[in-house]
Amino acid sequence: MPSGGVTSPGGFLAGAVSAGIKYSRGTRLDLGILLSKKPCAAAAVFTTNKVKAAPVLLSRERLAQGKISGVVMNSGYANACTGKQGMADAVEMTERAARHAGVKPGSVLAASTGVIGVMLPMERIRKAMPKIVLSAEGGHNLARAIMTTDRVPKEVAIKAGDFTIGGMLKGAGMIHPDMATLLCFLTTDADVDVDFLNQALKKAVAISFNMLSVDGDNSTNDTVLIMANGEAGREIIKKGSRKARAFQRALERVCIYLAREAARDGEGATKLIEVKVKGALSLRDARLAARTIVSSSLVKTAVHGSDPNWGRVLAAAGRSGAALEEAKTELYIGDTCVVRSGAPVAFNKKAVVKHLDGKEVYINLNLHVGRAEATAWGCDLSEEYVKINAEYTT
Amino acid sequence: MPSGGVTSPGGFLAGAVSAGIKYSRGTRLDLGILLSKKPCAAAAVFTTNKVKAAPVLLSRERLAQGKISGVVMNSGYANACTGKQGMADAVEMTERAARHAGVKPGSVLAASTGVIGVMLPMERIRKAMPKIVLSAEGGHNLARAIMTTDRVPKEVAIKAGDFTIGGMLKGAGMIHPDMATLLCFLTTDADVDVDFLNQALKKAVAISFNMLSVDGDNSTNDTVLIMANGEAGREIIKKGSRKARAFQRALERVCIYLAREAARDGEGATKLIEVKVKGALSLRDARLAARTIVSSSLVKTAVHGSDPNWGRVLAAAGRSGAALEEAKTELYIGDTCVVRSGAPVAFNKKAVVKHLDGKEVYINLNLHVGRAEATAWGCDLSEEYVKINAEYTT
Repeated sequence: MPSGGVTSPGGFLAGAVSAGIKYSRGTRLDLGILLSKKPCAAAAVFTTNKVKAAPVLLSRERLAQGKISGVVMNSGYANACTGKQGMADAVEMTERAARHAGVKPGSVLAASTGVIGVMLPMERIRKAMPKIVLSAEGGHNLARAIMTTDRVPKEVAIKAGDFTIGGMLKGAGMIHPDMATLLCFLTTDADVDVDFLNQALKKAVAISFNMLSVDGDNSTNDTVLIMANGEAGREIIKKGSRKARAFQRALERVCIYLAREAARDGEGATKLIEVKVKGALSLRDARLAARTIVSSSLVKTAVHGSDPNWGRVLAAAGRSGAALEEAKTELYIGDTCVVRSGAPVAFNKKAVVKHLDGKEVYINLNLHVGRAEATAWGCDLSEEYVKINAEYTT
Repeated sequence: MPSGGVTSPGGFLAGAVSAGIKYSRGTRLDLGILLSKKPCAAAAVFTTNKVKAAPVLLSRERLAQGKISGVVMNSGYANACTGKQGMADAVEMTERAARHAGVKPGSVLAASTGVIGVMLPMERIRKAMPKIVLSAEGGHNLARAIMTTDRVPKEVAIKAGDFTIGGMLKGAGMIHPDMATLLCFLTTDADVDVDFLNQALKKAVAISFNMLSVDGDNSTNDTVLIMANGEAGREIIKKGSRKARAFQRALERVCIYLAREAARDGEGATKLIEVKVKGALSLRDARLAARTIVSSSLVKTAVHGSDPNWGRVLAAAGRSGAALEEAKTELYIGDTCVVRSGAPVAFNKKAVVKHLDGKEVYINLNLHVGRAEATAWGCDLSEEYVKINAEYTT
């Protein structure tokens, strides 16, 4: 993947500052703006958690009203479980960001990530907002500003024909299937019909972020947003066209890349785990089995310890709800077959341990009851995960 | 709770030996028999995992045929994912146990727990079986023989009127709602109608073991079995009678006691967590919310670190699927209210941290949308859990 980020597509600006939101004396970037020079088509997938953060509620409402100009975002506190004051704060953030950027107040969305249940330090945000410098090189700083327990910023941009898609993502914990991921912002200079943009995003999310699990928890703030400003557009991309297919493919590549990077950077993770389930009776079954395996604490700890305890993989598949017949299952760890026709086969334990010792672990389960397949991503469960999460607010 | 175990009710014998099943040179008890002097009524709940161990399949089949005399059990290997040879081994184990105990071969069930996908060392089992000494004091040894990663044996017996109910349980990992628990054997000298016994067990399991979660994983071997031999019975206990209600109450007390002990002894656990959800719209919702909270990795790690990060509790409730209105929620940690009407309240942080530092942590969430309530049990997630599970087979 080429380097780049959300300001790689034409017509996007970004910037971030250190507002001291959570760490008052730090120099950590924690407040920023992503802006399109002109109002643009946008589509989003938000958390399905019934407890939704104020910025999520506000952004959803504004998105329904049509084109948007940008997003103001912060890390440190999530502005979730903060009642009416939290909503007033989210509105004020967008108004101040809009004024600073010179766009309409209602055209800016908001996103927050961090500790739940703490009011935003609005005085610090008011002071810092005017210091944000927006530029076409600002994407990298913005990607850093939304990090919480992330170890590395996660960014990408790819060029497909005459348009570019850029993206950035934060999220290392509280990530689980069907709740989108934490915060992911995608930009493109393609000119995309908004209905098609919505469909394309949903489809891409289904096979990327919804197949990602770090710890089985879901955030109150999850947001995946795509903005398409048409800067590079000679023709509008509509459903069914050749260009629409190229756009879909490029979007899926970007989303899967970011999902894999999120798994790799999972809290405490030392390894990326990719689970592919083949031969399932239905797509639903394939997805269910792959996600259950990659989410299993016992599978995750076994991978962490490079322990070829493959029984845990079959046990996870067995409880996933997917149709399976034990006597038909075939399981590979890396390139090594460990189960055939549901029974253990003698295998080269050294080769399997060597594979499990690597940075990327591949588990392939063929159920041999149908033709559907799906891939899920996750990471190992380490002592470090516990340490990070036992001490998060303190 | 008074001390005691499965041989406390009249007419039950038990015994165990060290067969060297997994640790060939150890003196760890790992093979044993639970026997009723006369054939008795029995009921059981087995794992719902689609991958079922050979002893589970065999026991389910034999139980359907009527009265049973006993159970042969081992730890070390689970005899799951072992194909046809695994089933032949399970059958042979029951035959040898029946011969040794002098009962009909078809009247003995089997139970195994341990590593999946490894064949039982039948030669060692054949040699050790005749050495098992069955006695009315053998319950304690048997409770030790089924331990795997358990730190302590879990046993109980209570007397209710003229009958006694005894029980023992093993299980510290791979425990999750709706998959029963690992291995739990209950005995009673009451004379119980088998239909009522089935109903009573299902009801007791629903509010005890099915509300217990250690790590979100489910075993291929889970079994909860109750045997009622009628030794103390002057009258048969049938549904609807006063004595039936007394039996139900006693059975639920035993099951809840054992479920709590299992949570307390969860792999790597340092604290028992009890989550009570009140004011839910339905019993299903109350159960769902309570179990989701107690299963959340983020809640479990926060409790581990005595971190009053209550937002994680609301976030878990929010994704549970239970109907809730954020603005109505009320949350207590111990005796301290931290959220009222969905908004954070100023609370004594020291008092909450002190409660979280204790050995038993109580989380009470009132949804204020209905009248249903449910309680779930679990434990904190520690670095030790990871260590135990990363090194299990090696």
